[in-house]
Order: sequence, then C-alpha cells, then structure tokens
Amino acid sequence: MKIYGMKASGNCYKIQLLSHLLNLPYEWIETDGRKGETKTPAFLEKNPNGKVPIIELKNGEILKESNAILFYLAEGSEYSSKDLWEKAKILEWMFFEQYSHEPYIATNRWIIKYLGKKEEQKQKIAENHPKGVHALQIMESHLKTNDWFVGNRFTIADIALFAYTHKAEEGEYDLKNFPRILEWIQRVSSVKGFVPQES
Amino acid sequence: MKIYGMKASGNCYKIQLLSHLLNLPYEWIETDGRKGETKTPAFLEKNPNGKVPIIELKNGEILKESNAILFYLAEGSEYSSKDLWEKAKILEWMFFEQYSHEPYIATNRWIIKYLGKKEEQKQKIAENHPKGVHALQIMESHLKTNDWFVGNRFTIADIALFAYTHKAEEGEYDLKNFPRILEWIQRVSSVKGFVPQES
Repeated sequence: MKIYGMKASGNCYKIQLLSHLLNLPYEWIETDGRKGETKTPAFLEKNPNGKVPIIELKNGEILKESNAILFYLAEGSEYSSKDLWEKAKILEWMFFEQYSHEPYIATNRWIIKYLGKKEEQKQKIAENHPKGVHALQIMESHLKTNDWFVGNRFTIADIALFAYTHKAEEGEYDLKNFPRILEWIQRVSSVKGFVPQES
Repeated sequence: MKIYGMKASGNCYKIQLLSHLLNLPYEWIETDGRKGETKTPAFLEKNPNGKVPIIELKNGEILKESNAILFYLAEGSEYSSKDLWEKAKILEWMFFEQYSHEPYIATNRWIIKYLGKKEEQKQKIAENHPKGVHALQIMESHLKTNDWFVGNRFTIADIALFAYTHKAEEGEYDLKNFPRILEWIQRVSSVKGFVPQES
C-alpha cells in the first residue's frame, strides 16, 4: 500500500498510526500541499479534491478521506467493531471530528505553525477559536465518564480525535483547561504499538 | 424511532428520505435551530453539540451526525453494501460531503434563504462560492462516467450528496453549468419510494 501524505498533517498521521498498530507495511510518499504537490496534474488524477491523505492499493485502486481510510483499514481488527451500533458510534465521532473539530483546531494550528500567518489571519483565528473550544468541551464532557470514545476501548474514533487534539496547543488552545483530555492523550500515547507524530 | 430534525435542513432530509425508502416508521420532532430549539438544556442533553438531526431509539439510545445515521439505518439494505471496499467508497463520498461540500453549498443557502442575510454576509458568501463550485465540479466529473456515486447503483452516498446539491440554486449556485448533476438529480428523484424535501 502507498500512503500519499504530509508528515505535518494530523489527517495523514491518523493513517500512519493505524498502519503501525496493525503492522501494515506501507510506502509513504510525502506530498506537501505547501509546495503545490497536491495540485499537480498527476496528483489530481488520483484525488481531484487535491487533498492528502489518500491510499493506493496494489491493484491501483485509490481511497480518499482520512476517516474513510481508517474505517477501511481497521475493519475486522480490534480497532473497529463487529457491532453495528458501535460502528455507527465510531462514525458519529469521526463525522464530529471532520465537521466540528478539525476545521477549527487543525486550521488554527496550520495558520499559526505552518503558514506563519498569525497576524495576517488573526480574525479567522479568533472566529475559529471558540468553535474549537466548544469541540474540546464536548470531548472533555464525554471523557468525564468514559476512558475512550466508543465501546470502552481504544478504537479508530480515538485515533481520529487524537490526531489534532494532541497538537491543539500549537493552534493556541490551552489544554490545561481540559484535564480529562490530557489524561486521555496520555492513555492513547501508552497504547501498545503507538508511534508519535513526526512533526 | 424518533427523528429530531428541521424540515429546512438537508442533513435532516437525508434521514427522512432514507426512512421512507426503507419503510421505517418514525416520529418527527421538529427542532428549529433558528428558534433556539437545538440549544435548550433538554436538547443539549441529547446532543451537546446542539445540532440536528439526531435519532432516538426505543431503548433511549441516541445517534448523531446525519451520515453516521444513514450508515446505521441502511446497514443490510440495498442502499448500503456488504462489500468492504464499496462501504469505504460510500464513506469517502460522505466525508467529502461533510468537509468539502456542505460547509459551502448548504451554508450559502442557509444564509441567503433562511437567515435572509445576503447583504450582511456577502463576504462569507463570496468566499464560500468558489469552494462550493469546486465540490460541484468534482461531482460533475465523477458523473461523466458514472450514473451513481458508488457501485453503479443508488446508495446512501447519493442520498448524502443529493440533500444539498438539489437545493444548491437556493444558495446561488447555477446548476445549468453542471448538466451531469442535473441528470443525476432527475435519476435520484425517480428512485422508487423517493419523497421530496418539504421545504
């Protein structure tokens, strides 16, 4: 399997982490959006949406969207579920992550740390911030009575949420206000086979 | 099953349409975000994210996020798939819809038609517009060689994309530029058991 991804991206790290947990061999093809590498004709043929991560199987088939890739790779493993209700709850958190969490938490990190446009985009950062805090509050509240997001064990729902949450401070979200999230980050980091994000 | 939803919302219509296709009985509880009904203490207990749709099963369990609900309800039916790859491709389109389509196409419709803030939010509308067009271009391109989004048949991927695409003109997206999408809208509207959105 080939993973087209960017090391700085939490969405791409999700796939790397799960591949390590599953001992799946992969070839990583670093594809940096900042250098225009997701907008080349060759890449747009693979993903017209111009985004990473994508995976390419040996038969040439391509799968896009980080959380769809997690779902596909985890099927049948301990990181997904055989139970329909649990699977739906995993997807519920993954859709929450992409709609109500990533656009605010990942985006502010991206603007501040990777684009270096903290001043230039301060209005956007300020608009995003309370929405990101709201997402973290929802997670904190869930973690008051749960160690994990679904089914009382570590699943791809945790991986999806972990990717940008554990780097949220790089987007100027203060995690000291979220003690249950900090404990959960420790818990995820202690899972057997865990590998940290490289950048 | 109870569906907490708002008739004006495409995300809520998705659940209504699938329920009709599956002949699932449901009780619709109209919950209007504009009237603050998604932010009452009673509703926030059901969904701390303050969004519809959600479904509530007879046992009291709640499922949130429109596309997770589609996945759950469609399982085992002709509108989902037994094949893992097809399921992953369905999810790929559903995550595309929530991340790259809905935030631009649904949002502009919402601002213009339901909030009546076309002037006040004209900058946001203008920023969203090209991103919505890009999503429509990706759909149009796919439909040049496919009648449906996944597996050469009507699935929940089509339902997820149909919800806001068929109302895109209310957000001032001109669908005349997308003839394959217009044909596909006709195709979806002709599916046996189809019901139109009520508002």
